Amino acid sequence: MTDIETIGRHECMHLLAHRSFVGRVAFAVDGQPLVLPVNYVVDGTSVVFRTAAGTKLRALRGGARVAFEVDDGRPLDRAGWSVLVTGIAEEITDHRDLDRLRRGPLHSWAAPAADHWIRVTIDEVSGRRMAGS
Amino acid sequence: MTDIETIGRHECMHLLAHRSFVGRVAFAVDGQPLVLPVNYVVDGTSVVFRTAAGTKLRALRGGARVAFEVDDGRPLDRAGWSVLVTGIAEEITDHRDLDRLRRGPLHSWAAPAADHWIRVTIDEVSGRRMAGS
Repeated sequence: MTDIETIGRHECMHLLAHRSFVGRVAFAVDGQPLVLPVNYVVDGTSVVFRTAAGTKLRALRGGARVAFEVDDGRPLDRAGWSVLVTGIAEEITDHRDLDRLRRGPLHSWAAPAADHWIRVTIDEVSGRRMAGS
Repeated sequence: MTDIETIGRHECMHLLAHRSFVGRVAFAVDGQPLVLPVNYVVDGTSVVFRTAAGTKLRALRGGARVAFEVDDGRPLDRAGWSVLVTGIAEEITDHRDLDRLRRGPLHSWAAPAADHWIRVTIDEVSGRRMAGS
């Protein structure tokens, strides 16, 4: 048996900012939910990732509602945590913002094709932890 | 620089069935995409996981369109793979089916509260791999 506990906002932001390299972004295309892994950084109170031109960019660039999730676990212990963000996605087009981000640590594994930058506002964040047996 | 290659259906099914314990299910609640981690098994040509009563169950039990994703990576090498399933979710109510599944290996980390079983048909599956630098 495993207990589930809720993680508070402050710790959720810490886990998001410092404990993961890869998150999963979920969005809908014509009513079909999709979910794809991305490398990301936390930038202020938003999550930023890069993407190439294509379906994901078209779905995300113009104010789409999205979810963003990170997790980590130890399968043999049946323990782990997850953090879920919901917010609005926008393509970053401000040149000063882009210059600053390009000097930062975020290099998509799929670079250099992924030359569009998406920002997801962190409207709500929640997390839960399973403490293990 | 990292090359992206497409993974064929046969290998996607192998990765899904044998290479991961935890997947992420994406679905929409009132137009808001959500994505949550679940332990799962592949059962024939579907993905099966357990969930407790609550928002996720209400959203999933009655024929919702969902996405299901697994991935694995080596961050330092900038290498990894991901597999994406799209399909329809249904709660499993057939007693023989439930008896068979309960004798199987799937024990949710959050058990015993997660006593509802959800089946996602694998309507489409696709995958991609980043070979690393």
